[in-house]
Amino acid sequence: MEVVTVDLGERSYPIYIGGGVLSSPQLLRRHIHGNQVMVVTNEVVAPLYLQQVLDLLSGLQCDTVILPDGEQHKTLHTMEKIFDGLMAKGHNRTTTLIALGGGVVGDITGFAAASFQRGINFIQIPTTVLSQVDSSVGGKTGVNHALGKNMIGAFHQPQCVLIDTHTLSTLPAREVAAGLAEVVKYGLIDDAPFFHWLEQNMKELVALESTPLTYAIKHACECKARVVAQDEKESGVRALLNLGHTFGHAIETKCGYGEYVHGEAVAIGMNMAADLSHRMGWISLKEARSVGNLLLEADLPIYPPESMGADDFLSAMALDKKTINKSLRLILMKQVGQSVITDQFEEALLQQTLSAGKSLCS
Amino acid sequence: MEVVTVDLGERSYPIYIGGGVLSSPQLLRRHIHGNQVMVVTNEVVAPLYLQQVLDLLSGLQCDTVILPDGEQHKTLHTMEKIFDGLMAKGHNRTTTLIALGGGVVGDITGFAAASFQRGINFIQIPTTVLSQVDSSVGGKTGVNHALGKNMIGAFHQPQCVLIDTHTLSTLPAREVAAGLAEVVKYGLIDDAPFFHWLEQNMKELVALESTPLTYAIKHACECKARVVAQDEKESGVRALLNLGHTFGHAIETKCGYGEYVHGEAVAIGMNMAADLSHRMGWISLKEARSVGNLLLEADLPIYPPESMGADDFLSAMALDKKTINKSLRLILMKQVGQSVITDQFEEALLQQTLSAGKSLCS
Repeated sequence: MEVVTVDLGERSYPIYIGGGVLSSPQLLRRHIHGNQVMVVTNEVVAPLYLQQVLDLLSGLQCDTVILPDGEQHKTLHTMEKIFDGLMAKGHNRTTTLIALGGGVVGDITGFAAASFQRGINFIQIPTTVLSQVDSSVGGKTGVNHALGKNMIGAFHQPQCVLIDTHTLSTLPAREVAAGLAEVVKYGLIDDAPFFHWLEQNMKELVALESTPLTYAIKHACECKARVVAQDEKESGVRALLNLGHTFGHAIETKCGYGEYVHGEAVAIGMNMAADLSHRMGWISLKEARSVGNLLLEADLPIYPPESMGADDFLSAMALDKKTINKSLRLILMKQVGQSVITDQFEEALLQQTLSAGKSLCS
Repeated sequence: MEVVTVDLGERSYPIYIGGGVLSSPQLLRRHIHGNQVMVVTNEVVAPLYLQQVLDLLSGLQCDTVILPDGEQHKTLHTMEKIFDGLMAKGHNRTTTLIALGGGVVGDITGFAAASFQRGINFIQIPTTVLSQVDSSVGGKTGVNHALGKNMIGAFHQPQCVLIDTHTLSTLPAREVAAGLAEVVKYGLIDDAPFFHWLEQNMKELVALESTPLTYAIKHACECKARVVAQDEKESGVRALLNLGHTFGHAIETKCGYGEYVHGEAVAIGMNMAADLSHRMGWISLKEARSVGNLLLEADLPIYPPESMGADDFLSAMALDKKTINKSLRLILMKQVGQSVITDQFEEALLQQTLSAGKSLCS
């Protein structure tokens, strides 16, 4: 088992990573301080892992809430089911919420924990690659608004995160790939050696081989933990974590949640960022293509949908053509493994990237 | 104009108090840092004061949301109207929410501000005595759950609070009295001289005379600001602010929101606390009766509803008779002007207080 500590002063917490950490009750129990817990999961994960978690909690008042599955249920309305359960079962402010599932379950449960009685403890047990390397680290919680993702939420840190890589064996291949997109992101942000390690080991990761998988998840958590510790409330460097997300969100918005899962949209967005970085003369064609190649190796899409032109991107990014340079900051690559937040890009080159479709030079 | 500073380090903020502070645009404008604002108010307050506030905001993108009036609308569902407005009008994370109204508007708007994009600025313009002396100080925000008051919320401090005592001229007398109950509370907690000042000046306060009213509101805000500064997240001394609230909440729960307004229930609760403190031998009969007398002077009820016996109180307080002493801590009076949080009360005497009805010895 590996342990990564997210260093946030009195809000610091450990991430336990390994195959089988969910078989060890003492790991979980040491982070539960009252005698009440509520496990929040969804209808897909419940039949797979709920009983295993409940078995770790004997002797406590332990209730469960099972949410519907899917990003479209990441709403205030769904969150009310958690409050209804907590109130109906008489939970007080010493209770602990346990989020068992992917990013949607984690984000809703975290926000419920931030809000119930103005803040109770919670624990994350992420069961997807994406939530293991991304949403379980950093304390961002929240739900979507019909007009925008993650618009309503709170910063609320968990007591601990338990990542059992065995839970990935039941994850659809498409979800594995989507999570690997975020893993690649950490290499691109500030860690060229990790990027090159990924180039050597991507096949094994796609095949869920335990040793490289544990290493990659640990390394990704460390990258994110390092960035979050520098900038908990996202006033500066944490924005680097949005590499690929500006373009990716535009794709998700235009295509509707569902056609692309989040990691796929981010993969395309990273490839577009590589393309623009090359057009700017910041990275070589070879470097730009290495980004696309690694994403392809992970079975990810790298080209924007043919239906989307430059205007579609700009409107989804809520940008007026006349004010692009005033209002847009992008995360681009100075090299593979060194990303920057910048408004110093040429608008004409951005237009080329946005309209390139399958002709992206990366 | 008087200014009280709530001292919370980097979250410190000023409370401006006086007749006419809403006529001075620069007070408000210096606390707005972006170029977008949204004023949230309700259908009763909007026709009275909304235009006056909008007049202070010229040159900014200024939108409004008008909520239904009443405690029964203090829900997540109502809060969504604020998010809908913010999203529809394209507000970003530099926007400022302005809460114009009583405690319900302030609490909902504050929680919306805590949650929109994980935290935006907000300003309180409380227009009732109760919200001026209580809910606008301390950063508690939130909404009710069907099974419990204020169960869902956040701690979120405003940029400033503007208290214009002129707005009280349109407040129903019953609401004035309810607010004065909380003013009396501050005297009882730790300020005997203020309690005695109130005994001398209650008639003038009920008549809304400007000079004593401004003094009383300022003094109450100072009391609360002092307590909150010591204990922002209510882990200790802040609980003293709940004097009268344990009994009061039981009355509100049993009678349904509406039969008694909050301040009335708290007035009865404080009188019951005085009664029990006297039965315990901590305060004299004369002192206990002085509490009831001052509340009567403010036109407040002091006896619990005849329909409620000891069992009704205990069940509303979610207490099993067998575990009262294990789970209940009460705020009682060692003297008038010195309250304490204690589990050192005699259960038999508590039973007498809960079943005394109109025979309360205070």
